[in-house]
Amino acid sequence: MTNFKSLLENYKIIFFDAYGVIKTYKGLIPGIEKTFDWLNEQKKTYYIITNDASRSPELLADYYHKEGLHQITPGKIISSGMLAKEFLDLKVKKGLIAYLGTEESAHYIEHPGLNTLPLQQMNEDNINDITALVLLDDEGFDWMDGLNKAVNLLRRRTIPAIIANPDGAYPMSKRDVGIAIGGLAWMVEKITGKKFIRFGKPDSQIFMFAWEHIIKDHPEITKRDVLMIGDTLHTDILGGNKFGLDTVLVLTGNLLPQDYQTRIISSGIAPTYICESAVVERDFLN
Amino acid sequence: MTNFKSLLENYKIIFFDAYGVIKTYKGLIPGIEKTFDWLNEQKKTYYIITNDASRSPELLADYYHKEGLHQITPGKIISSGMLAKEFLDLKVKKGLIAYLGTEESAHYIEHPGLNTLPLQQMNEDNINDITALVLLDDEGFDWMDGLNKAVNLLRRRTIPAIIANPDGAYPMSKRDVGIAIGGLAWMVEKITGKKFIRFGKPDSQIFMFAWEHIIKDHPEITKRDVLMIGDTLHTDILGGNKFGLDTVLVLTGNLLPQDYQTRIISSGIAPTYICESAVVERDFLN
Amino acid sequence: MTNFKSLLENYKIIFFDAYGVIKTYKGLIPGIEKTFDWLNEQKKTYYIITNDASRSPELLADYYHKEGLHQITPGKIISSGMLAKEFLDLKVKKGLIAYLGTEESAHYIEHPGLNTLPLQQMNEDNINDITALVLLDDEGFDWMDGLNKAVNLLRRRTIPAIIANPDGAYPMSKRDVGIAIGGLAWMVEKITGKKFIRFGKPDSQIFMFAWEHIIKDHPEITKRDVLMIGDTLHTDILGGNKFGLDTVLVLTGNLLPQDYQTRIISSGIAPTYICESAVVERDFLN
Amino acid sequence: MTNFKSLLENYKIIFFDAYGVIKTYKGLIPGIEKTFDWLNEQKKTYYIITNDASRSPELLADYYHKEGLHQITPGKIISSGMLAKEFLDLKVKKGLIAYLGTEESAHYIEHPGLNTLPLQQMNEDNINDITALVLLDDEGFDWMDGLNKAVNLLRRRTIPAIIANPDGAYPMSKRDVGIAIGGLAWMVEKITGKKFIRFGKPDSQIFMFAWEHIIKDHPEITKRDVLMIGDTLHTDILGGNKFGLDTVLVLTGNLLPQDYQTRIISSGIAPTYICESAVVERDFLN
Repeated sequence: MTNFKSLLENYKIIFFDAYGVIKTYKGLIPGIEKTFDWLNEQKKTYYIITNDASRSPELLADYYHKEGLHQITPGKIISSGMLAKEFLDLKVKKGLIAYLGTEESAHYIEHPGLNTLPLQQMNEDNINDITALVLLDDEGFDWMDGLNKAVNLLRRRTIPAIIANPDGAYPMSKRDVGIAIGGLAWMVEKITGKKFIRFGKPDSQIFMFAWEHIIKDHPEITKRDVLMIGDTLHTDILGGNKFGLDTVLVLTGNLLPQDYQTRIISSGIAPTYICESAVVERDFLN
Repeated sequence: MTNFKSLLENYKIIFFDAYGVIKTYKGLIPGIEKTFDWLNEQKKTYYIITNDASRSPELLADYYHKEGLHQITPGKIISSGMLAKEFLDLKVKKGLIAYLGTEESAHYIEHPGLNTLPLQQMNEDNINDITALVLLDDEGFDWMDGLNKAVNLLRRRTIPAIIANPDGAYPMSKRDVGIAIGGLAWMVEKITGKKFIRFGKPDSQIFMFAWEHIIKDHPEITKRDVLMIGDTLHTDILGGNKFGLDTVLVLTGNLLPQDYQTRIISSGIAPTYICESAVVERDFLN
Repeated sequence: MTNFKSLLENYKIIFFDAYGVIKTYKGLIPGIEKTFDWLNEQKKTYYIITNDASRSPELLADYYHKEGLHQITPGKIISSGMLAKEFLDLKVKKGLIAYLGTEESAHYIEHPGLNTLPLQQMNEDNINDITALVLLDDEGFDWMDGLNKAVNLLRRRTIPAIIANPDGAYPMSKRDVGIAIGGLAWMVEKITGKKFIRFGKPDSQIFMFAWEHIIKDHPEITKRDVLMIGDTLHTDILGGNKFGLDTVLVLTGNLLPQDYQTRIISSGIAPTYICESAVVERDFLN
Repeated sequence: MTNFKSLLENYKIIFFDAYGVIKTYKGLIPGIEKTFDWLNEQKKTYYIITNDASRSPELLADYYHKEGLHQITPGKIISSGMLAKEFLDLKVKKGLIAYLGTEESAHYIEHPGLNTLPLQQMNEDNINDITALVLLDDEGFDWMDGLNKAVNLLRRRTIPAIIANPDGAYPMSKRDVGIAIGGLAWMVEKITGKKFIRFGKPDSQIFMFAWEHIIKDHPEITKRDVLMIGDTLHTDILGGNKFGLDTVLVLTGNLLPQDYQTRIISSGIAPTYICESAVVERDFLN
């Protein structure tokens, strides 16, 4: 167990996961605003690196503001949806983009020159105009109808299929999880034999997206100056490690203090450090 | 390509798959009643070996009768649901059996001493009384609600989880498929890390179930006397081969005349014979 | 924890796994002969159900005799290799059977009318005569040569590929495991896209093989009269449960007393009972 | 089918896969030197992006020089081994790096402050000093010994495991393939339950590595200016597409002219363009 504040002092850039690090199903982690106050005071740079493609960075930031955390602005948030957006911009220049998700999540697929189609509205008249399928969120559609349409679209059309949040499940309460859009995508892949293009941790491309922002402004920065903070071994820690960053596992989310050692050993995914939480203040009290 | 009728002459017992061999999404295969007339005339024994656990053998037989095929009686039908029933009878002696499927499919889990619970009715009061989970049919429940409940039940309780139809998808029309309950089970397994017990082809236990019926009445029969007829390589043909039976692939279902050779080569699953269909009459015309 | 001897009293037929139940890498489990003495005295029927296809039942029995356990005769041993033998007998009537394994393991593939070929001797002259591939044992061949030949044989020929021992690894010492032939088969399957036919626990067919022996002599026996004893959740316990048998997990093999509860919960595979060991005497001392 | 030379005219930067595009098991693709002459003449920038970690960029370039292709210098070659090297540099600061591969492949893991150990020399005295495992090449070790050691090392030590070439197999002749180190890694992962960190196409990090080189010298370049040329859908084309590049499939390697359409449809991975080969001259003759 490492003291979180003394750890932060060694890095110039801090990457935070959102869920399990800054907030949980119950709201903000108590005291987390102190961490961001301190980072601002120290003039350290930080980013939120999140697999949440259910809404735009603007709407994600709104949530923090409403909860009283004013330091997180849209420009600080890098979501996997932004990579889906970049992919469509570079690789899918025309046609109709079909999606599964809410209207808010469709933010990421709106581009000049492209039309979007909630997959539930796919029919024999428009199926041949569809040029990509994007899975954004587990809400906003009837699963039986939407998943069957996804399977049949991919059987009939050779088009890119993108998943903007690779997580299989997410915590809904102290005990229960919800199946996430990444879990639904596994089934569609297995049935169709086709692979989704996955954007989001642990894949390196989301870290690279943040990295390109950083080196534009701070060309002197190296990967040794960056610390990734997360609560999940298979996404935050594996992804951060693979990208070459030092990583901290915090115990306020997916992993409980009594479980984390077993899980590190059984998965083979080891963080550089382990801290109780990402709250600066709490460490003073210990 | 082998003549179907001359092939039948070499066997005493015939196993038929149902979907793609006797019927399709459009109804009965035209002329299939001639095959069963001829089998009766020749005093050959036959069984329908089906992964359809959506209704009881009685209701499955009703369908054939309504369509004019009177030779298929409930006693001739061996469905994967019957194996789920036997398992529950032997291994789950008390408690509440939760299920996903229609009310008709629940036929297979009704036992003296056991209560059944549509999984959508699971709640904090009854979750600890549940002693098994059975997935029977893709209809009869809301997928988002039902699948999330299946995941959380298996996370919280160490109980047997049974899948009574391992098929991943089934043909819905000339072009489209529907996701079957076996496809939904893959996702629940991957998210929870727990394995369903699968009953149904290609697993041997369904063939053994039929086999035990046969050798009681005809102890002289050997596996060389039995022919398995199916339209699907991964279930009917693989399962029949593995059980030691001769197998025929018919081209009236899953595999089209232009595709079957490629699919046999790429899967490595080869039937003993290939016939155009399971209709006796049609062969005369050729 | 259940007393092993009082448990045995409730069953007429006992199935034992071999490795981890009767013997380990160090030799026989101390005192195990008392169990077999008692079973003989009580006139209970027993079988050894093993995934070991590395030698014939005669040679497997020889080992027990040399170690002083005289009660286990070849007729009491049912090995997964015997199912491979039955499959070849029924389904592969001619040609050249290629195999990976030792000369002793080749016992299972010797049939009148068939020739056998150690896979390392495959070449351009004989590859087209090969009618089946059987993986028997991880010893007896150079892995680089043999595995590459297995991959290329299955790419070029559409023939049945059989694995006579589905285990992925086996204990070599207190700490270390050895990769078993089933683990090598996973790789060949993934590279070629073709599936091996797997004989051996947890697949039902090996239990059925024993069952058919039993009901011939004792037609009054039901599955309720049979107890399966094993040390491995994914083979012995899962397979026994699925076949409808009561099962006992013993803690003298794969699972240690401090681990078994976590492993049962994480896998979802629960034995009917748990006993310290399969030694009758040891229970008296407790 | 697109004319290769007219396609090249639209891009400023060209990425080439090596095997199947520039060379095959028979040597250089005839005429390929004309392509590089033309690129030099046009002052276009090019890189070789290869999953070959069996030797250093210097030795890889030597091969081309010996074959008469003088334009490919070590600085033009970006191999997956270089990413493994960067990872070790950033994340494994001390200890003993165990590896599977030839002495030449060990080039990638030699770092000041680190010692290297051929995995075959692992024993009870040094196992606890090992701080990472790197799989580099399928040659240079006995598979039975090396793979068993890899499995037991990962069971006993929680250390990063890296695979520097994720390919499962590679062409050895017109008909046959060889199992590659990536194929061996699948088996070790499945047996141990631990995941290797994979560097190399289709993973984005190798493209990013090239990209960072480019934007340092040419900050005006965008991804629209780059073309990726490859012969394999699952590595070159999938990886290039995902990184946001335009892609060309050439038919001189893995995919034959009669197969590529079926493979694109069944995998769902579509290149932006298809060309006969990467030879500029050959197009003139058509």
